[in-house]
Amino acid sequence: MPEETTRVDAQKLTNFSVKALEKLGVPKDDAVITARMLVACELRGVESHGVAHLNMFYGRRIQRGLINLNPKPQVFSQAPSTATMDGDNGLGFVIGYHAMNEAISRAGKTGAGFVAVRNSTHFGAAAYYAMMALEHDMIGIAMTNSVPIVVAPGSSQPAISTNPIAVAVPSGKKPPFVLDMATSTAAGGKLEIARRKESSIPEGWLIDGQGNPVTDPTKMVRGEGGLLPLGGTEASGIYKGFGLGLVVDILSGILSGSTVSLLAETPPEARGNYSDHFFGALRIDTFVPVDKFKKSMDDTIEALEALPTLPGVKKVSVSGPYEAGIVREREANGIPLHRRVIEDLKQLAEEVGIEYDL
Amino acid sequence: MPEETTRVDAQKLTNFSVKALEKLGVPKDDAVITARMLVACELRGVESHGVAHLNMFYGRRIQRGLINLNPKPQVFSQAPSTATMDGDNGLGFVIGYHAMNEAISRAGKTGAGFVAVRNSTHFGAAAYYAMMALEHDMIGIAMTNSVPIVVAPGSSQPAISTNPIAVAVPSGKKPPFVLDMATSTAAGGKLEIARRKESSIPEGWLIDGQGNPVTDPTKMVRGEGGLLPLGGTEASGIYKGFGLGLVVDILSGILSGSTVSLLAETPPEARGNYSDHFFGALRIDTFVPVDKFKKSMDDTIEALEALPTLPGVKKVSVSGPYEAGIVREREANGIPLHRRVIEDLKQLAEEVGIEYDL
Repeated sequence: MPEETTRVDAQKLTNFSVKALEKLGVPKDDAVITARMLVACELRGVESHGVAHLNMFYGRRIQRGLINLNPKPQVFSQAPSTATMDGDNGLGFVIGYHAMNEAISRAGKTGAGFVAVRNSTHFGAAAYYAMMALEHDMIGIAMTNSVPIVVAPGSSQPAISTNPIAVAVPSGKKPPFVLDMATSTAAGGKLEIARRKESSIPEGWLIDGQGNPVTDPTKMVRGEGGLLPLGGTEASGIYKGFGLGLVVDILSGILSGSTVSLLAETPPEARGNYSDHFFGALRIDTFVPVDKFKKSMDDTIEALEALPTLPGVKKVSVSGPYEAGIVREREANGIPLHRRVIEDLKQLAEEVGIEYDL
Repeated sequence: MPEETTRVDAQKLTNFSVKALEKLGVPKDDAVITARMLVACELRGVESHGVAHLNMFYGRRIQRGLINLNPKPQVFSQAPSTATMDGDNGLGFVIGYHAMNEAISRAGKTGAGFVAVRNSTHFGAAAYYAMMALEHDMIGIAMTNSVPIVVAPGSSQPAISTNPIAVAVPSGKKPPFVLDMATSTAAGGKLEIARRKESSIPEGWLIDGQGNPVTDPTKMVRGEGGLLPLGGTEASGIYKGFGLGLVVDILSGILSGSTVSLLAETPPEARGNYSDHFFGALRIDTFVPVDKFKKSMDDTIEALEALPTLPGVKKVSVSGPYEAGIVREREANGIPLHRRVIEDLKQLAEEVGIEYDL
């Protein structure tokens, strides 16, 4: 529904987001970190994790006092390559940004750096953190847990969150390879988008409390039924998506000294906010010369893009390059925002007392 | 088809496998490593990676001179946490065993250890290597590439292998959590089993050269069509399974200084043999006290097993404990081997000149 969207300049959108966050009480530097991440999602076409969340997730939670705007995150480390961080209930973007830098710094010294983070809040899209490793010629890894909305195989009760895994790998002439995937069939944000657009969702994403498929995204009732793990059915590997999601919960929740989100004792009003993370970086030149690695990545992406395709498919798309094409187009022509997202941003502007200038 | 299987004692099966491998020219220690891994798969119920491969994969390849039985694997390291290994075309089990120990040793010193391996051969089930970390109170990770048999989304030409990911996590009183998953909907070994049992396979595992679903496992033609990545269709996340598989190929192939298997210049007769690996270990006590971690794992597994289930489902099964139940039963009552596997082992015994004493 293109008539439902309006193009908005990326830089203006960033500035607007910074101003709104500052008015909400977020320190300037932290507002910049957060706004950049939200707009980076929009530029990459990941509207499920973009500025639609600025008011809905972050603004409202800040106004309700659910996020510590002046956190003192602490790093605990017993070994050169690893650390845990206590996020002091700070804004997830800011905590995640510092934790990923900690992982990168450790990988710089030992070849590998891993940081598990407890007591943080919703950190947006995992890809951004993984991609922070790219400029250091490292492979970046980021994952997070959150409130359970994904059912366990054989049950209709939510047991884990959509627990995404992001991996970013540098290449040479080609855009980097970036994977960012919920371990459920579909990310929660995909349901939000369907609700916003009043469209139905494919069978296989969501079940109700009796295990029946649900195709109306407005019919998701918190705690009764939920999203299906990647794989969807026993025959097509549902245990794999669930197992990967559980690994994310273990690395983010248990390894950080927190817990899996199923067992988290979070007050109901803070549940959507709950989040632990896990970040990693591998320094490529400690394995193989960087030039050789990047050349091999380019060759791989080119070989995949040159594969013969099935009728109706133009080209095999490797996620990074695909998204990079969108980035260039949106940087030039603006980011298409849905009417309802714009209404939400206008409301936010009014609430915090800034001009809506997009 | 229980009438098609015969129970065989695990220890006898191990001894038989060691003898057969020794007769094939494998040094004693290496034969023991290999036999233990094959039988460990059978004990865990992973018949797709057990002794059915002893002759078909390893015996025949050894007889054709495709595996170096006296390899001199070399470790190259530029940093305390990371290394690459050249496997010198040795038996994958043996190369993998040493490489995983290298990762564990590095994690012992720095908290994290990662080893990428090139120039190895088929290493069996990834779970075994990941599980080697458990007794060190570490989280173990293992993955491998191999010859392409999985199609890229939008194509019917094989682009990657089933590229499995295994993660093993220690727990306390409960059996460890072990995930071992092909990044395709089904592992290649699952097709072999269906062929052996002359049963059909579910739609969604395999497509032909025109992209049509194939349910007859004997209809898989090398190079035309192939297995589908986990997710299966665009709507249900096929890019996720393919993306994960590509990450495995990058970490195993490119980071080790080899290449993704799509670009490997392997002679046709050695193609099924081709393999690079990636191993990792994270030392838990450098993040959080081990007792606390294990207690939290127990609590998590118990909470998942206590979830209410859908009609017809007894209990939510978390893969580790499920498999541990099978191990105990098979240790006590023997391993059920299919008639055709027994025929194959008898043939091997005759070929190498040992007694079939199972």
